[in-house]
Amino acid sequence: MDEDATLTNFKVLYVVTQLCGLTMIILVSCWVGIHLGGVGGTANPKLEFNWHPLFMTIGLIFLYGNSILVYRGFRNVRKKTLKFAHAGIHLTAFVLTVIALITVFDSHNLPVPPIPNMYSLHSWIGMGAVIVFGLQYVAGFTAYLAPGWRQALKVAYMPLHIYFGLFGFVLAIASALMGITEKALFSISDYSSFSSSGVMANSLGCLYVIFGALVVYLVTEGSYKRKPLPEDAVLLTGVNE
Amino acid sequence: MDEDATLTNFKVLYVVTQLCGLTMIILVSCWVGIHLGGVGGTANPKLEFNWHPLFMTIGLIFLYGNSILVYRGFRNVRKKTLKFAHAGIHLTAFVLTVIALITVFDSHNLPVPPIPNMYSLHSWIGMGAVIVFGLQYVAGFTAYLAPGWRQALKVAYMPLHIYFGLFGFVLAIASALMGITEKALFSISDYSSFSSSGVMANSLGCLYVIFGALVVYLVTEGSYKRKPLPEDAVLLTGVNE
Repeated sequence: MDEDATLTNFKVLYVVTQLCGLTMIILVSCWVGIHLGGVGGTANPKLEFNWHPLFMTIGLIFLYGNSILVYRGFRNVRKKTLKFAHAGIHLTAFVLTVIALITVFDSHNLPVPPIPNMYSLHSWIGMGAVIVFGLQYVAGFTAYLAPGWRQALKVAYMPLHIYFGLFGFVLAIASALMGITEKALFSISDYSSFSSSGVMANSLGCLYVIFGALVVYLVTEGSYKRKPLPEDAVLLTGVNE
Repeated sequence: MDEDATLTNFKVLYVVTQLCGLTMIILVSCWVGIHLGGVGGTANPKLEFNWHPLFMTIGLIFLYGNSILVYRGFRNVRKKTLKFAHAGIHLTAFVLTVIALITVFDSHNLPVPPIPNMYSLHSWIGMGAVIVFGLQYVAGFTAYLAPGWRQALKVAYMPLHIYFGLFGFVLAIASALMGITEKALFSISDYSSFSSSGVMANSLGCLYVIFGALVVYLVTEGSYKRKPLPEDAVLLTGVNE
């Protein structure tokens, strides 16, 4: 396939991915708003919890995915700008993730009696995803932005940065699927009779999977790789993504 | 890194992966045997269900993973033998998966009143994984074993065969994590107080993730790719994995 056709394919899939991501955010908002009673503050821990799926979907799935897509999605922007965008979107994702964690811990700690924390597989795998994400952020920031590691180390770390970046992303999605499963079993009393709330929750889960599969495909397919621009030469590291 | 060191690294990780996989099977057996009451036939649908996590773990996770690892794990065996091994291990995985599906449908249909089927996200994503696996098997078999597609089609399909093969594998693991979540919430009354059954279930989930992460790493890392042997020349397709 020639280069133009390849790039056209990429663009079509990129647009589909974004539409899928936006639908995912709309759907989680509708689920929370229509079926889970909306969101609330610390005065109502049950409604405060509802920020958790909303902010995790926006932060740890949609923004996380878009941050790793930024190099290929905006391939004509110079590398340095893309690095800042990558770090900036990830930072936004991290802030939303922290808020999402606070709301879920509040929703366990504020009721009387409190609900135990960190007992479920969802919480273990989800916390694992957040830790992988956080460590990657620190390592990626120090390696490629400031102060910058030695050239040989930068090059050696890049495949691991990519691998663990995608690992954390897939882990976040797996964790979201378990989160939906938990919330559906706890809160949807007629889940087993295909109620609208249950079908909506399952559809949201399917969208997470489709969004994740598209993001992983777009960032791993060799022919979609961004080629270095002439302006990139000043910070050329021998590793171009 | 020189080629010998790379191959040594591969071997070490390969052994770790196998140990992790075997531990996973032992752990699911212990969980079923010690905490879920063991296995049984159609006379006791609740115990018949317990074949489901056991056979899915062995078939759709352990054997599936090993089947995609076979080219790199046995790199000195000729290609044709490896293709038969790949198809054979996958077939065994498929048979176990079908038995695992029969036992779960039995466990829903045999009780009075019956339990509805296919209402949970676990069942949707799990069935998705089985369908991806089945379609891949048919496509892979006809493309590369019998009758064999046209050369250009074989080459064009290979990246998709690899992508969807890994997609189905990761989907199977995500589905297993949701399965553990469901079973833990249904059957472990003291899940939230870190009971041994709950901790064992969560540990099993973590092992699925580690096994999956290792398999995906071993089959995607470029330097671990199997190189064609002189004997492979007769069926050289231009695509070597």
